[in-house]
Amino acid sequence: MVNARIALAQVNPCVGDIAGNTALVLDTCRAAHAQGASVIAFPEMVVTGYPIEDLALRESFQRAAAAAVEQIAATLAAEGHGDLMVILGTLGVSRSGLPFNQAVVLSGGAVTARYNKHHLPNYGVFDERRIFAAGEDACIVSAGDSRIGIVICEDIWQDGGPVAQLTGSGIDLLLVLNGSPFEEGKGRVRTELARRRAAEVGAPLAYVNLWGGQDDLVFDGHTFVVGADGTWLANAPGFEDALLMWDLPAAGAPASRGDVVDFASDDEQVYRACVTGLRDYVRKNGFRSIVLGVSGGIDSALTAAIAADAIGGENVVGVSMPSSFSSQHSRDDAADLCARIGADYRVQPIAPLVEAFQAQLPLDGVAEENLQARLRGVILMGVSNAEGHLVIAPGNKSELATGYATIYDAGSIGGFAPLKDVDKTRVWDLARWRNALAASRGETPPIPENSITKPPSAELRPGQTDQDSLPPYELLDEVLDAYVEHAEGRAELLARGFDPAVVDRVLALVDRAEWKRRQYPLGPKVTALAFGRDRRLPVTNRWREPSQ
Amino acid sequence: MVNARIALAQVNPCVGDIAGNTALVLDTCRAAHAQGASVIAFPEMVVTGYPIEDLALRESFQRAAAAAVEQIAATLAAEGHGDLMVILGTLGVSRSGLPFNQAVVLSGGAVTARYNKHHLPNYGVFDERRIFAAGEDACIVSAGDSRIGIVICEDIWQDGGPVAQLTGSGIDLLLVLNGSPFEEGKGRVRTELARRRAAEVGAPLAYVNLWGGQDDLVFDGHTFVVGADGTWLANAPGFEDALLMWDLPAAGAPASRGDVVDFASDDEQVYRACVTGLRDYVRKNGFRSIVLGVSGGIDSALTAAIAADAIGGENVVGVSMPSSFSSQHSRDDAADLCARIGADYRVQPIAPLVEAFQAQLPLDGVAEENLQARLRGVILMGVSNAEGHLVIAPGNKSELATGYATIYDAGSIGGFAPLKDVDKTRVWDLARWRNALAASRGETPPIPENSITKPPSAELRPGQTDQDSLPPYELLDEVLDAYVEHAEGRAELLARGFDPAVVDRVLALVDRAEWKRRQYPLGPKVTALAFGRDRRLPVTNRWREPSQ
Repeated sequence: MVNARIALAQVNPCVGDIAGNTALVLDTCRAAHAQGASVIAFPEMVVTGYPIEDLALRESFQRAAAAAVEQIAATLAAEGHGDLMVILGTLGVSRSGLPFNQAVVLSGGAVTARYNKHHLPNYGVFDERRIFAAGEDACIVSAGDSRIGIVICEDIWQDGGPVAQLTGSGIDLLLVLNGSPFEEGKGRVRTELARRRAAEVGAPLAYVNLWGGQDDLVFDGHTFVVGADGTWLANAPGFEDALLMWDLPAAGAPASRGDVVDFASDDEQVYRACVTGLRDYVRKNGFRSIVLGVSGGIDSALTAAIAADAIGGENVVGVSMPSSFSSQHSRDDAADLCARIGADYRVQPIAPLVEAFQAQLPLDGVAEENLQARLRGVILMGVSNAEGHLVIAPGNKSELATGYATIYDAGSIGGFAPLKDVDKTRVWDLARWRNALAASRGETPPIPENSITKPPSAELRPGQTDQDSLPPYELLDEVLDAYVEHAEGRAELLARGFDPAVVDRVLALVDRAEWKRRQYPLGPKVTALAFGRDRRLPVTNRWREPSQ
Repeated sequence: MVNARIALAQVNPCVGDIAGNTALVLDTCRAAHAQGASVIAFPEMVVTGYPIEDLALRESFQRAAAAAVEQIAATLAAEGHGDLMVILGTLGVSRSGLPFNQAVVLSGGAVTARYNKHHLPNYGVFDERRIFAAGEDACIVSAGDSRIGIVICEDIWQDGGPVAQLTGSGIDLLLVLNGSPFEEGKGRVRTELARRRAAEVGAPLAYVNLWGGQDDLVFDGHTFVVGADGTWLANAPGFEDALLMWDLPAAGAPASRGDVVDFASDDEQVYRACVTGLRDYVRKNGFRSIVLGVSGGIDSALTAAIAADAIGGENVVGVSMPSSFSSQHSRDDAADLCARIGADYRVQPIAPLVEAFQAQLPLDGVAEENLQARLRGVILMGVSNAEGHLVIAPGNKSELATGYATIYDAGSIGGFAPLKDVDKTRVWDLARWRNALAASRGETPPIPENSITKPPSAELRPGQTDQDSLPPYELLDEVLDAYVEHAEGRAELLARGFDPAVVDRVLALVDRAEWKRRQYPLGPKVTALAFGRDRRLPVTNRWREPSQ
């Protein structure tokens, strides 16, 4: 026997687009009601988008968010959806002007309850204590004969607070509105946490999450319901719109099950996070097309494949900008790539431009190498200016972390770097995964095999390879992961058995590159620490790991 | 009758340079002891530098800070300074591993007391709740017959907490260790606040502040002592090293006075903040010289003058990069500027480079204008690469706020933008102030008069002036101040009487420029909100001020 049909709306709002988000909420409510839902729940701050950072403090924005909630309630009632209970996240403001991360409950055309998030995360990518006041009260609403406790995201990640208040209160469902960013493996962590909280309150837990890209964050969705006993009752796929329907049974009735789908592999999830982050950066910022440099190497090949998956290959311009040191195979691979993904392929040799510069301002050594690289940046910006494409940068995490890149070159200029948080070893993994996916579907693999198998080279001088300057990538990426992502010091790295010479070399590269890295554009976060190594570091900073 | 001679050490540490800061503390203690001090107080977090952001979370850094404090205590005792009480700020860690913003008291070679900051600022430029746990206990130490209460910076800006705990406790001095960033007019605010807190606790208040540049923050020093009755007892000048000596009288004895100096004018303070921010960005990051583009215009002229004041004109390279649209007076003014400040002057015409590009990738309109601008950026980066100078960017706040700039041009590339937080109207004021200072000293004014008086132009097409694209700067800067610094909405701007057409034009420019501005390098903060307009805004963000 069903007490309430719950719809969990896994949607992709846009930060600041209150009118668009309002329309999204209304459309989703209409669809859920048509499918028999009596309750619909949206993610954290769906009305404003998430995270809104300091927009929370702007009074004109606060007023607009409040008006949108009123408008949603009134519109639904006027259209005959007044019996649908709507639970959604928004920006609330106390009478004394304090902003809250708030859930509101709409019913019969009015706001019938409000809940203010208690636990405000202020670590990693989160700054909520900067912008929100903390709530203190629990919130339970009645839907039919059922009692639903409402909390928001971090509230289940911390002990105490609202989950403790709801424990023993006899609720029939714990509903969690989330804006939980993706990182590799996070689905497993969330699931275990949700099972623990469901057991604590003695009720099923419904977890509804945002999806979509927002600057360097990607939200993965992966909305789900678990039973009080930990049974997996329903879930939605990641990285797409979903309206997950689940029936809340009457008291004493057995738990019902909804749709259940398998989780994708880690490689697939990371790939889809990169596609989502790029697509939403492009679209939500009003661009329709992308331009990038295609060198024939693996980074630009994978980036172009991601771009084609994000906005269609016909909206991608690949510019090959060979120098006198570029090999023929590089040019062939770049052309092959663009043909495979259906991109507009162009060639702009840089030799005449280099000659014009050298005639006027002779440079040699690294300065000459960097000059070549930067002229490519100028070409891409020129094409962008003339035709309106967003320039994207194929730089990967390993090279950004070690500073193995030229500031303002084709690998680092522009508005977005899809591989910013993907290390080089993983770049190859993702390329192989994407090609295998194509093969399994009988499609042409997007990435030329040669780009995957050849030794990586910046081709800024004859015969150059990355390993002239860097340790082998497998080793480098291991050290980077420990130092950058896990903040281990030199002592801890040596204790793990790394060669001291390698450790010192990598640490020196990373420390020197800190300043440089600050210049890079945003990309999606796919690992726990986004760009890692204590996310916020001073630029002017002489701290170096002590050598003993 | 003197109970204790207090030395207030206004010093300039470097973030992360624990060894250097330790040496700075030791040298200053020796000097103070030689001058008869019995107590010396240093600013907030002098051992680690401030602000350290996420370095606070790194265990190897925490260990190094703790070792430095032990080393300072032991060294002073071994050298016979054990009777000098040293009060300094550092990074403390609780037994359970929580980091604190801590004051430690050293005496006789040991740590004799610790105080953990209660109020952790988490707004504006501060992120302290992200990295520190809050202290709960007050701290009073005895120096001779006097009792000194110790608090840290934000502790006096918030009601309650340690100042309330110390009220009525009969302390003889309230000592405040500060890392308080400069903003225009802040000296007056601090003074009034200090007078109020001194009255509350019924004792004199000694305020010791950092000075120096740290990324986009500038600390101004301006260390002072006020009496319980608000009397101004002693102060140090801003923006320089100072050891302010002040005698704490015996109970019942009249308040003693130390050195008193006048505050500089607002223009002088802002100018010195720009010089300090640039000098420390250059030196603390290991550079010795600067290169910048000199156009003959006011922005690059003022920037070059600031650079010469910061590191000496002989360490400044000015590159004139005339296009076919550059006027002869521009070239003359650029040459004149470099002669006045003693900079290395070079000329690199861009016409041959533009021609090489146009032969290969023909561009027109804005794309062509931007191409010219970006080739200048490439020249500067090439000179930087070849010779090791830091590239600095002369872009001012008005143009950065409105996006009236080319991404990656000579006005926006590089590591530091000294005028990032100085609006155009103020650029002229500072130029006039600096020239008048020179005249008053019988020196050559650094800035050519013509650069100050001529109409501003980017000279990217014939006859172009800034006012073709922007409202008059006096009006523009007023609207920007209200919208960007004071977060006023459109309704508030109209209520203040601004023309709706101007308001809508400026708001559209600023909103469109948000994304662009994120690409700009750091400069010093000289106004309340650093770069203003809700300091942290999402890049992907469709919020626009509602038109009604």
